[in-house]
Amino acid sequence: MSISQSWIFAAIFAGTVSVGVAAWLYYWVHRQDAGSQEAQEVASWIREGAKTYLRRLYLALTLVAAGLGVIIAIVFSFDIEHLGMGVIHPNPLRGGGMALAFVAGAICSALAGYMGMTVAVAANVRSAAAANESINRAFQVAFYAGSVMGLAMVGLAVIGMSTIYLITGDPEIILGFSFGASTLALLAKAGGGIYTKTADIAADLVGKVEIGIPEDDPRNPAVVADNVGDNVGDVAGMGADIFDSYVASTVAVMLLAASLFAGDAALQVKYIVFPLILCTLGIVASLIGIRFVRVGKNGKPGQALNRGTIITCTTFAGLATAVVLLGGYNLGVLWATLAGLATGIVIGFTSDYFTSAENKPVFETARVSSSGAAINIITGFSYGLISIVPSIVGIALATLLSYYLMERSGMSGIYGVGISAVGMLAVSGMIVSSDAYGPIVDNARGIAEMAGMSQKVIDTADVLDAAGNTAKAITKGFAISAAALTVLALFAAYAEVVKIRGIELALSLRDPIVVAGVLLGAMTPPLFSALTMLSVTGNAFKMIEEIRRQFDEHPGILAGTERPDYATCVDLAAQGALASLVLPAFLAVVFPVLVGFILGPEALGGFLGGSIFTGVIFALLMSNAGGLWDNAKKFIEAGEFGGPRSDAHKASVVGDTVGDPFKDTAGPSLNTLITVMSLVSSLFAPIIAVFHLF
Amino acid sequence: MSISQSWIFAAIFAGTVSVGVAAWLYYWVHRQDAGSQEAQEVASWIREGAKTYLRRLYLALTLVAAGLGVIIAIVFSFDIEHLGMGVIHPNPLRGGGMALAFVAGAICSALAGYMGMTVAVAANVRSAAAANESINRAFQVAFYAGSVMGLAMVGLAVIGMSTIYLITGDPEIILGFSFGASTLALLAKAGGGIYTKTADIAADLVGKVEIGIPEDDPRNPAVVADNVGDNVGDVAGMGADIFDSYVASTVAVMLLAASLFAGDAALQVKYIVFPLILCTLGIVASLIGIRFVRVGKNGKPGQALNRGTIITCTTFAGLATAVVLLGGYNLGVLWATLAGLATGIVIGFTSDYFTSAENKPVFETARVSSSGAAINIITGFSYGLISIVPSIVGIALATLLSYYLMERSGMSGIYGVGISAVGMLAVSGMIVSSDAYGPIVDNARGIAEMAGMSQKVIDTADVLDAAGNTAKAITKGFAISAAALTVLALFAAYAEVVKIRGIELALSLRDPIVVAGVLLGAMTPPLFSALTMLSVTGNAFKMIEEIRRQFDEHPGILAGTERPDYATCVDLAAQGALASLVLPAFLAVVFPVLVGFILGPEALGGFLGGSIFTGVIFALLMSNAGGLWDNAKKFIEAGEFGGPRSDAHKASVVGDTVGDPFKDTAGPSLNTLITVMSLVSSLFAPIIAVFHLF
Repeated sequence: MSISQSWIFAAIFAGTVSVGVAAWLYYWVHRQDAGSQEAQEVASWIREGAKTYLRRLYLALTLVAAGLGVIIAIVFSFDIEHLGMGVIHPNPLRGGGMALAFVAGAICSALAGYMGMTVAVAANVRSAAAANESINRAFQVAFYAGSVMGLAMVGLAVIGMSTIYLITGDPEIILGFSFGASTLALLAKAGGGIYTKTADIAADLVGKVEIGIPEDDPRNPAVVADNVGDNVGDVAGMGADIFDSYVASTVAVMLLAASLFAGDAALQVKYIVFPLILCTLGIVASLIGIRFVRVGKNGKPGQALNRGTIITCTTFAGLATAVVLLGGYNLGVLWATLAGLATGIVIGFTSDYFTSAENKPVFETARVSSSGAAINIITGFSYGLISIVPSIVGIALATLLSYYLMERSGMSGIYGVGISAVGMLAVSGMIVSSDAYGPIVDNARGIAEMAGMSQKVIDTADVLDAAGNTAKAITKGFAISAAALTVLALFAAYAEVVKIRGIELALSLRDPIVVAGVLLGAMTPPLFSALTMLSVTGNAFKMIEEIRRQFDEHPGILAGTERPDYATCVDLAAQGALASLVLPAFLAVVFPVLVGFILGPEALGGFLGGSIFTGVIFALLMSNAGGLWDNAKKFIEAGEFGGPRSDAHKASVVGDTVGDPFKDTAGPSLNTLITVMSLVSSLFAPIIAVFHLF
Repeated sequence: MSISQSWIFAAIFAGTVSVGVAAWLYYWVHRQDAGSQEAQEVASWIREGAKTYLRRLYLALTLVAAGLGVIIAIVFSFDIEHLGMGVIHPNPLRGGGMALAFVAGAICSALAGYMGMTVAVAANVRSAAAANESINRAFQVAFYAGSVMGLAMVGLAVIGMSTIYLITGDPEIILGFSFGASTLALLAKAGGGIYTKTADIAADLVGKVEIGIPEDDPRNPAVVADNVGDNVGDVAGMGADIFDSYVASTVAVMLLAASLFAGDAALQVKYIVFPLILCTLGIVASLIGIRFVRVGKNGKPGQALNRGTIITCTTFAGLATAVVLLGGYNLGVLWATLAGLATGIVIGFTSDYFTSAENKPVFETARVSSSGAAINIITGFSYGLISIVPSIVGIALATLLSYYLMERSGMSGIYGVGISAVGMLAVSGMIVSSDAYGPIVDNARGIAEMAGMSQKVIDTADVLDAAGNTAKAITKGFAISAAALTVLALFAAYAEVVKIRGIELALSLRDPIVVAGVLLGAMTPPLFSALTMLSVTGNAFKMIEEIRRQFDEHPGILAGTERPDYATCVDLAAQGALASLVLPAFLAVVFPVLVGFILGPEALGGFLGGSIFTGVIFALLMSNAGGLWDNAKKFIEAGEFGGPRSDAHKASVVGDTVGDPFKDTAGPSLNTLITVMSLVSSLFAPIIAVFHLF
């Protein structure tokens, strides 16, 4: 057994351990005290709602996966080799393998999301119950539940990719796996984003504005849908999002290695396997880091999360250094790994700067709110535009550093760009764990309120929630920059996949077909954002009508004597969200292929480039502006600039509502959009290239 | 005298006629009846305010022009020739010529703006006075005043460019002229945009919201600044904007011809002069078209403006066809000209679709306003994002069409892309005339209100104003698409300028330095937008304090017994706007040069590309979303969805206020930003290229 083969088995082993720990934590969380009868009943509504959504999502997924699976099986049943020789021969085995890999990718992503969501809706009530006892217990329940998602995700991804490579030895088949994962991620992320904001906006507009009942009031028929939405959008959505970058960056590097080292079989295998090694080390580091996330009796949850992240990152850096030095790898890959890791952390903390109340952007936005909603919007939007700058500079710097450090070490620089993405994403196990913790404690707070639990529980939940918000801000920055480096690597992989077929793409901006491609690509993320945001408002109006109908036909609901029909609202949100995905999914999957077939592979390359540039910019703008408005509102609610119910507060509520679909629907879906577009392009690149030669 | 030389003299002659007609109309407008004593007094405040601003602007301009002129004179006193031979020799004559051309460009642009503004502030009151008599008279005064700007602009541009070419025979010197015009345009457009919205927002927030006095109430100390702002931003700003695209596209094509036909001197001169011929034909067509813009006793002003545009375009197309066929030019240039012209018109009318109340975007935005300001903002913003699509597709199509039609005719395709921009902009004389008409009638309405003129006058002014708004929407779409094609041509010219020095740029998206450049370039337009918008809110707060101070210290103002101090508000707005330009101007002029020197000419190429892509996208988004919110508010004010003072109306006012700096400050400045960045890059390209070789 060669060293590379041993590493693949090690990767499968580490993945299995990761999934095992996730499963153990899953049962550990379920064994915890579920609290009072009342709290359990409230939690059961949310759990049922989540199940309704998941059922619909998986039904939609099955249809999409089956349809795309058949197309993939047919399309890839032909080997397209070096076109100079013009060899195209049927190979149904490859088509079947590709289709299977696609389905496996979708299932793995779905499974991780399913575990993450079911444990989240079990953990919320248990965390609330534990908060009655002590903050450290409540924290532990929520964080371990979050870890289920983090560990299951990285474990399943590594097992899937390693197994496929072990069987086929062909990284292009893993592209199918990645495409499956990303297709699910798009459904989960964009669908979840539409779902959660539909419910949120409808619940607020009728409940808080029209009727004047507080947030999380159980008389509001949309309140369960709103709480389900937190899990759907933030747990399942964010998990799927990082899952898809994690797999895509690894595949991109494997494809690059396959092409760049085509001349030397031993070297080729060595560097194809290397990203899997980084993933393995990241899993080990995450498992160690998670052990250190604990709070003492009066400890700070934010510090505990940061400690876990720092320990994970340093452990990972140490392990990577050891493997590179001992394993005789080119030193360049180490620099690239570390450059990626450092960039991820730095960008994460910068996005925290723009969204946290101690700093100028949030403070200024809150301050000007007394002059009305319009000034609040203009100011927040402007700071959102400025927040693009540090991240873009960071991404450009990481690209250049990883490229030139690699070139200086005598290896192809583009491999370094891919490795920097993998280096950044290797610690995803830990990052996703702290991120998934956030919505769980948010939900715990909601349940405590709805079930009328003690003020102590609510206060504890508030402390836990604040730490969750910071973790969430950092993860968003991390996710966007990771996605940017991932798609840059995929972009390079696209050119290599075409090159293997004998077509060298110039992708020159001096070529008008490339410029036309860039223009079309650049307009896609804004269009996608618009479609998802209009779906949110459109669906919210439908739900508002349903809420009003319930209040009209059942006066007992507002009197508190009758239970509202939560299920209809949940169903309405789920149905609306999935129906709204048809057009965006078309944009993501079919539009790039159309551009490729009509305008050719050069234009498609430009298209991908254009979509990356504006995709990253709009993702940063929308996520950061949204977070900023949210925190400006919270800052005023904490008593600054007039405090609650002042004119400034009213203005800041408008900003927050505008920011909702920005930060939770459109912004975070853009990562997935550009990943899916890059994957579908690489996947279809050989066929498009052949089509354009004849 | 060769045919090309004859054409240059013809161009100078046509330019002189155009300026002559402008001067004649200038005096014609001044000879019209200026109306009642009261109206004249109101108008004199606006006139004085405009002069205050112009004085400050020209002072700033003189300083900037002197500083940049000296730098240019020094930097360009060296000839950098083919680097393969490494020839760099001093040539102070060239440096002086370049500096002179730069100053001349700035002066020509300033002169056109000055004429346009002084006639506008004379025409507003005269148009109001004529409205008392008949609509056709009032229309004539306003439109002829607008024509002063349009005709002066194209005339001075053509005279300047032709004269420089006649003297030096070197298109690179004309680059200096273009850079001068664009630097002024940036000051005029961005400064004017900040000025106008500072005054508008401050006047509204204190006047309408705090005190509750109507718009255009003479007791408001900011009301004059607000009316001056309309002239500063819309007349001088838009004129300078189109002036700069007009010159830049012509120069770009001349540079391309100089490089592409370097092997054949006769062909070279023929195609260097061709864009000047198109400009000449455009002037003739505009002079004819303007003659046909008339309304009968009960005629429709909108139809009259459209008729003028159609006649101008068809005349121009006919003349261009004749010249190409008779002059023995390659047929490709005709197709490119017509493709550009058609695209300009189509994009103009599409942007009208997104901002006019008969269509879905405005209607929907107005409809959802009853659910609050946030939904209004989300909906308008989303439609703004969608509005990007048709224009981007149009620009991509025009690029491809003009390129491939040219290639099919056996000439270099990139020359066709430049020609399509010139073809689009050749009819600017007419386009600017209808555009400048808008703010004049808007002002006429303001004066009628402030001077207490009859309801008949106000109604007539309203009819004239509605036509002006449509013309304005069309011009904005036209200006953005023209700028996009212009900068694409400049982008190609940049590569050619470097090529002449022996460096062939690949500008491949597979090169990470190009990608890093694109990323940095792509973030510049959003950053620029944020800086200008934050200036607006910052300056508005200063002006709000001044207005409050006046009300506090002089209670007679609100009682109507004391005249407020308009001049201080005007001065505050002017001072604030120009001071706010330092950072944006740095971004425009210094940042590209820095990127070039630090990262090299390939990165600078990528930088330009990136700035074009996001610049066009943000310009379209901001202009269209802003127009859409404005018209949604007007639609509600006209009695729909609850009418004035309803909740829907309040929500739509928030959207309109957000849209103000979008559509009048940030959005339209972005054209100029990307043009200036492209010009400065082409200008410094030889030096940057040499620097990076050593």
